Amino acid sequence: MQITAREIAQFLGGELEGDPDIILTRPAKIEEGVPGAITFLSNPKYEEYLYKTKASAVLVDTKFKPSSKIAATLIRVPDVYGAISRLLSAFNGVGDIERVKDPTACISHSATIGEQVAIGKLTVVEDDAEIGDGTIIYSQVFIGKNVKIGQNAKFFPGVRIMYDCVIGDNCIIHSNTIVGSDGFGFSPDSNGHYSKVPQIGNVLIGNDVEIGANTVIDRATLGSTIIEDGVKLDNLIQVGHNVVIGEHTVMAAQVGIAGSAKIGKNCVVGGQVGINGHIKIADRTSIGGQSGVMGSIKKPGTNIFGSPAIDYGDFLKSFIGFKKLPELMKQLQKLEKEVDRLKAE
Amino acid sequence: MQITAREIAQFLGGELEGDPDIILTRPAKIEEGVPGAITFLSNPKYEEYLYKTKASAVLVDTKFKPSSKIAATLIRVPDVYGAISRLLSAFNGVGDIERVKDPTACISHSATIGEQVAIGKLTVVEDDAEIGDGTIIYSQVFIGKNVKIGQNAKFFPGVRIMYDCVIGDNCIIHSNTIVGSDGFGFSPDSNGHYSKVPQIGNVLIGNDVEIGANTVIDRATLGSTIIEDGVKLDNLIQVGHNVVIGEHTVMAAQVGIAGSAKIGKNCVVGGQVGINGHIKIADRTSIGGQSGVMGSIKKPGTNIFGSPAIDYGDFLKSFIGFKKLPELMKQLQKLEKEVDRLKAE
Amino acid sequence: MQITAREIAQFLGGELEGDPDIILTRPAKIEEGVPGAITFLSNPKYEEYLYKTKASAVLVDTKFKPSSKIAATLIRVPDVYGAISRLLSAFNGVGDIERVKDPTACISHSATIGEQVAIGKLTVVEDDAEIGDGTIIYSQVFIGKNVKIGQNAKFFPGVRIMYDCVIGDNCIIHSNTIVGSDGFGFSPDSNGHYSKVPQIGNVLIGNDVEIGANTVIDRATLGSTIIEDGVKLDNLIQVGHNVVIGEHTVMAAQVGIAGSAKIGKNCVVGGQVGINGHIKIADRTSIGGQSGVMGSIKKPGTNIFGSPAIDYGDFLKSFIGFKKLPELMKQLQKLEKEVDRLKAE
Repeated sequence: MQITAREIAQFLGGELEGDPDIILTRPAKIEEGVPGAITFLSNPKYEEYLYKTKASAVLVDTKFKPSSKIAATLIRVPDVYGAISRLLSAFNGVGDIERVKDPTACISHSATIGEQVAIGKLTVVEDDAEIGDGTIIYSQVFIGKNVKIGQNAKFFPGVRIMYDCVIGDNCIIHSNTIVGSDGFGFSPDSNGHYSKVPQIGNVLIGNDVEIGANTVIDRATLGSTIIEDGVKLDNLIQVGHNVVIGEHTVMAAQVGIAGSAKIGKNCVVGGQVGINGHIKIADRTSIGGQSGVMGSIKKPGTNIFGSPAIDYGDFLKSFIGFKKLPELMKQLQKLEKEVDRLKAE
Repeated sequence: MQITAREIAQFLGGELEGDPDIILTRPAKIEEGVPGAITFLSNPKYEEYLYKTKASAVLVDTKFKPSSKIAATLIRVPDVYGAISRLLSAFNGVGDIERVKDPTACISHSATIGEQVAIGKLTVVEDDAEIGDGTIIYSQVFIGKNVKIGQNAKFFPGVRIMYDCVIGDNCIIHSNTIVGSDGFGFSPDSNGHYSKVPQIGNVLIGNDVEIGANTVIDRATLGSTIIEDGVKLDNLIQVGHNVVIGEHTVMAAQVGIAGSAKIGKNCVVGGQVGINGHIKIADRTSIGGQSGVMGSIKKPGTNIFGSPAIDYGDFLKSFIGFKKLPELMKQLQKLEKEVDRLKAE
Repeated sequence: MQITAREIAQFLGGELEGDPDIILTRPAKIEEGVPGAITFLSNPKYEEYLYKTKASAVLVDTKFKPSSKIAATLIRVPDVYGAISRLLSAFNGVGDIERVKDPTACISHSATIGEQVAIGKLTVVEDDAEIGDGTIIYSQVFIGKNVKIGQNAKFFPGVRIMYDCVIGDNCIIHSNTIVGSDGFGFSPDSNGHYSKVPQIGNVLIGNDVEIGANTVIDRATLGSTIIEDGVKLDNLIQVGHNVVIGEHTVMAAQVGIAGSAKIGKNCVVGGQVGINGHIKIADRTSIGGQSGVMGSIKKPGTNIFGSPAIDYGDFLKSFIGFKKLPELMKQLQKLEKEVDRLKAE
């Protein structure tokens, strides 16, 4: 891709200082700027790089005042971080896939495929599946019987969507992630042998949901496991059967949520957190990485940490005590001796 | 599927109260009952829903005494939970797959395929593999050289069974799970560079084992990694090389077991537990979620918790102390001052 | 495979005691030795098995002095552990794959494929990809646009290498692992809704790197996520965007590394460890299993443990205190009473 600084400034609604005709071919980090690159300064601690970068253009804040001479063309924008995101989109060619059904894909005659859909090589689309307009399914994906997928979704290679699951518009699902595997349900007999409880529910995913790679979302035993609009899940996450994740909640990698837990809206869940089954987490709860949440969180906006998880501030205070425990034990021993001596006197 | 209440009652061996000819089309949770649904009451705290459900039929305990009028047809059974499981199976159509070898599957001429086997689209079956009668292999699965699979097994899309592994009867393996990847074995040289120790063992899986999605079971360095009869493993679990998991042990999602650990029979392992390599866990051990088991557990029936894991009751008592640590530190400081004052007197 | 003890001794440069013509067909553990097997004694605690093994040959240390009569042929070598590794390689037939491009693979005409390359069934190689001499790509793999792979690499079934990623020589990647999925980057608006920050960087993997099964390595937002030479990663690991992992660092299963963390060289990271984003870990750091590393580690060779992680020895001392907390609370209460009594006197 080749574009001039003037065109980028127009695209971003920014003001240009310097050569408007300089050709830009790729974005780069400011410390890695090379001729042809467009870069940006959003974090002030990188300002030193601005004066020595070899990049051809730099996005800066409208109000930025340089303390030295700058060789690169500047493009001033009111919101550098937002502008970067739009800039990266402009240079991101991954969506430019030809909208064809590859002849090596196995697509059932009873499937309903919308307009401008791409279906990649060796992908399987089973009976009665529906794929909405503009959706891109990459290679080697599995779309099971009676699955419904909305518009403008994007599924990367190796994604498996099992029968009866429903996925909304604009969803992105990364490689090898599974939607609709069986929930983990067994009933033990008196000998300690387990028999399978059939899992005949499904998974419902709203609009604008993004799910990372190698994540698993189990179908409900009965009813639906539900991922609401705008949820963002990272890689290698486990979502148990009948879980509900509320709108616009984000979860970092390797989180595990046991069956039937209900997570509120706008929660932020750190990496490797474990959430117990059958509990409720209030809206806007923030959970620190590796925490283990054993009971329900009732008050919205609560901040918790630790395994088992407690109030974040309380955990930090207790952890200071934990680090001082060897010293505390010595103090206690010394005190005991002193008290013994006082008693003997 | 359409079935009358009378037929369901006969199938479950239950007694019917109400309209025997009412048509039932799907199971549902009692709080989500709609006309045509058959639902159930097993947990007494849901009893209120029984009196207002719109479901056409409800399974209840033989001895259940309603406290108010019920519109739905009742089917009385001695074991509601067991009956639900049988009911769900009856409505679960996923196994109703046509028993054909799909023409897009790549099946070696030297593979031995039993009767009534289904092999899905774009599945690969390599040389000398054996697949027992009644087994269903879904689409896009990989069955490596010399793999042996028993009867009536079911492998979902994207499962990979590597060369030489052996899997028993009635096993279910969910999507994208791997059996027989190399164990993690390296020998360091004096420069801190690692060279690979070849992993030439295999994995042996017994009968009636179910393994969730995106789980990994490594092959042994030499000999076999062993999963015994009736074991149930959830999603995203790591089983290292030469591990043995005893009969009828169940493990929740994201558990990690390091190489050569031996886990007993009838153990229950919570989610995200880590188990150290080369240790032995006694039969019927119960391990709380996120615990880290560093040493062997010798006494059967032990209940442990924490990272590092200790006796469950002891952990809870110590954790009470952890939460009180800031207060304990203040008490200790106050005592020190008081003792100093007493000494000065 | 059939080979004589004499041939094995020559291959390993060892001295032979016993029947040089005995036929060896497979390696085995010393406690599982059967006629035809070659086994080894490296750990002295297994010496008892040496005198009763039915194996046909045993590798022992050059200096080993038996305390009793041995039926098996002995092969004496200076480094038993190193010899085992070479022995296992000799018996390991998995690399003996025919070097052909399978006709069911979908290989772009613009891809560049080296000499002696194997490409398995139903594998996809997209436009402008490059695969070096001697590399083996198994079945059902995805190699995206413009991916560069070095020589003598080995990729197992279901691996997905996304567009623009670069992988060095002699790398091994196990089943269903993903290289180059999008990093987890979103910018929130004032309503708590998230919009995607495009991830247009790539992943750079050096030479001699091995990556386990079902692991995920995200591409950089800009620039590269970097895995340096000789790194060994186990199964189910999460590597976030823009992470750097230094040369010859090893990580056990289920480790999670948040975005932009920089891990030093020759580090050893235990299973299920979590590493915070944007921190630096010094060379030769050792991190105990399940630890949570919240801040940078500046001193090379540091040994840490716990969640949050602190110095290893300090953690153990504090954990002794944690276990004694119920007792400490009682002691403290008793002391308080005694001091009260002394004050009253």
